[in-house]
Amino acid sequence: MTSTDRDSAHRAHLDRLQQAYAELLERSGFDAVLLYSGHARPHHGDDQESSFSAFGHFVHWTGAPHQQHDWLWIAPGTTPRWFYYAPTDFWHLPTPPPQGVRAECLDPTPLAQPTTAAALIGAHPRVAVLGDVPADAVPATATLNPPTLLHALDELRLYKDDYESDCLRLANRYALAGHAAAREAFADGASELDIQLAYLAATRQRESELAYQNIVGINAHAGTLHYQHYATTAPDTLRSLLVDAGHRHAGYCADITRTWAALDADPLFAPLIEGVTAFQQRLIAELAPGVDFVALHQRMHHYLGALLADTGVLRMSAEAAVTSGLTRAFCPHGLGHSLGVQVHDVGGRQHDASGAPLPPPTADPALRLTRTLAPGMVVTIEPGLYIIPFLLAPFRDGSERQAVDWDRVDRLADHGGIRIEDNVLITAEGHANLTSAPANDAR
Amino acid sequence: MTSTDRDSAHRAHLDRLQQAYAELLERSGFDAVLLYSGHARPHHGDDQESSFSAFGHFVHWTGAPHQQHDWLWIAPGTTPRWFYYAPTDFWHLPTPPPQGVRAECLDPTPLAQPTTAAALIGAHPRVAVLGDVPADAVPATATLNPPTLLHALDELRLYKDDYESDCLRLANRYALAGHAAAREAFADGASELDIQLAYLAATRQRESELAYQNIVGINAHAGTLHYQHYATTAPDTLRSLLVDAGHRHAGYCADITRTWAALDADPLFAPLIEGVTAFQQRLIAELAPGVDFVALHQRMHHYLGALLADTGVLRMSAEAAVTSGLTRAFCPHGLGHSLGVQVHDVGGRQHDASGAPLPPPTADPALRLTRTLAPGMVVTIEPGLYIIPFLLAPFRDGSERQAVDWDRVDRLADHGGIRIEDNVLITAEGHANLTSAPANDAR
Repeated sequence: MTSTDRDSAHRAHLDRLQQAYAELLERSGFDAVLLYSGHARPHHGDDQESSFSAFGHFVHWTGAPHQQHDWLWIAPGTTPRWFYYAPTDFWHLPTPPPQGVRAECLDPTPLAQPTTAAALIGAHPRVAVLGDVPADAVPATATLNPPTLLHALDELRLYKDDYESDCLRLANRYALAGHAAAREAFADGASELDIQLAYLAATRQRESELAYQNIVGINAHAGTLHYQHYATTAPDTLRSLLVDAGHRHAGYCADITRTWAALDADPLFAPLIEGVTAFQQRLIAELAPGVDFVALHQRMHHYLGALLADTGVLRMSAEAAVTSGLTRAFCPHGLGHSLGVQVHDVGGRQHDASGAPLPPPTADPALRLTRTLAPGMVVTIEPGLYIIPFLLAPFRDGSERQAVDWDRVDRLADHGGIRIEDNVLITAEGHANLTSAPANDAR
Repeated sequence: MTSTDRDSAHRAHLDRLQQAYAELLERSGFDAVLLYSGHARPHHGDDQESSFSAFGHFVHWTGAPHQQHDWLWIAPGTTPRWFYYAPTDFWHLPTPPPQGVRAECLDPTPLAQPTTAAALIGAHPRVAVLGDVPADAVPATATLNPPTLLHALDELRLYKDDYESDCLRLANRYALAGHAAAREAFADGASELDIQLAYLAATRQRESELAYQNIVGINAHAGTLHYQHYATTAPDTLRSLLVDAGHRHAGYCADITRTWAALDADPLFAPLIEGVTAFQQRLIAELAPGVDFVALHQRMHHYLGALLADTGVLRMSAEAAVTSGLTRAFCPHGLGHSLGVQVHDVGGRQHDASGAPLPPPTADPALRLTRTLAPGMVVTIEPGLYIIPFLLAPFRDGSERQAVDWDRVDRLADHGGIRIEDNVLITAEGHANLTSAPANDAR
């Protein structure tokens, strides 16, 4: 997109939200919505604050994930009003006022000090207040976080317009530069901490700006799904690196995973990375409106079973690998999730008539997306294959123990695992991969 | 310290806490204390968590500032029991069990899942529960966060034993390596973000492990006292760099500030850095038991007034600079604060008979330490000199306007400011500078 196109798309995004909110307010009997950004809280007994990320529905309008003490007043028929906190203070640099399309479409009004919902609502009746606001700070005439309205706004977040998919594409571009730097640092023998710092340097962001904590796992650490440490020294023997790391652009999150085999990897490992990458691409090729994501998740298990059989890790059919539960021991997480202004974006689950999300299938408790795909959805496709001793133990002692080549499993154990993850937009015609930006994507 | 000496000192530290807690419990009518580490909270409407730092009184015992869902049971006459959270979980790497002196002195007991105060207290009467625990999770027989006991424990934190001052000294050593790397990166033309990443690499820590958010300000940014951003590009003209950055060792925090003049600095700037450094050293030389920190803070203002007069920024005596309020416009923060397992450690303020802290002097609302110094206290000494237009404006238009060389002030404006900060232990004989580890420090 050119910057003029981007501005037009941005205006269209805010117009769309304005119309959608007007309809939802009408339907739910409110005259206006007051959205609160939230604010950081100090650690208990301390004056230092924890990291902060603004409320998703506030970011949906403002694209500003780190604003604190801000409010957004949305009433159909009037320009939304952005009360942004800009104190005169020598302790902190004041946030500059909103610029460009934001300033044009979201009437910016500075706040010299934090204010309350009650002060902003005044005598307005029928106002919904949304966000992290204490119940006693909301006037009796207003309604705090009504569930039906929140479910409907979550649903609205599920479908991205051109502006939003462009932000996600730009976030992906930064994240890919980071993955290249991470791979290079690993090739130079860097520790997990130094790989993380190389990633941050290449993506031009600090840790607390990330939409989620990057996972940087060398060897067995790659098998801890949300491995949350960065070791400060590299092991002597380098087998594998898994990096699950993103970027946030105007609030929108990239979420990309790559896995690399190192010099000391077992000969089995690189073919497994190739195998996971191949079926990840096959799953992406199947993405289109009307596809049931739960069925696609089950297809991932079939492909994973076939790969484990083809490479001799399992001595059974792909079907048997799935029905025995073995593929779920090798990959206990879901195929993917919705992606937007939060990394695990809201609205991913099928819901009941009131809009309340329904639980995922019993066999796949970690599956965050259970929808039928439709144009505008942006999803991650992230199959994995891990050696997790805790999950394999029951099979090692169970009736299927002969069906597993435990020697091969043990050869792979110190590699941790494999995950390959791209971010994909569902289009009317099929899909566009925002991570690899393939030729079928005209923009 | 050798590692054997350190282990002895560590045992002595835990013995000291054991005895002090026994006395305080006796005095306040409790049989036992249950300390909660706390746990991270998700951002509102999101499944991603904010950064976390454990409750200070828990860290005082355990030296573990990032443990979550942990409890410590302290009852006089028995070994303290550390219930540490160690789930069997393939999502996260379980925290390894406590080792060494900690394991020896704090009977470690693993928790497979988070537990409650009620479950741990059982039928024990007269228990004080301390930490971020909801009131309805504490049994009716127990007392949640009794203020008098908390004030007494804050007071206990104010005095560091040999183990603690050694941890602070080690934290300082790491932080100094970081400051050297930051200065080198700045000399190479790095941006604030890259200076911060160079600091993290040299100190072997990630951003969320820091005890406070590092301040890295180039040029005018150095004048925003808690400048909280890291610009991703360096300005074309480089005048100054202020870095206020620390390290955490076994929970204990370093807090060091250095300021550097760059090639494009005004000729006035380097002499001002030298001047602030000289009177910072003079203030440190005065540190000893019996010194009133409020009086020392006032002496800082006198020295600052003299420097501003000597360098021709002010055309008035040092005394007049202080009484006119001008030195407070040039340095609106306090001379220093207590330092320990929190960067702004508890117990720094004079207190009333119940132990409740009293407010600081009216003229110095930001002064965090108002005590008479005594052996074992560790304090920061951090005088500053800033060009803050918002604070100087009243003088530019006021009756003292002829007493200020506004041309000099304006030449300095784009340099932001100067702060020089060391961490100093008060000893029976005087003091020991933990930052510069001078020759008078035998250990």
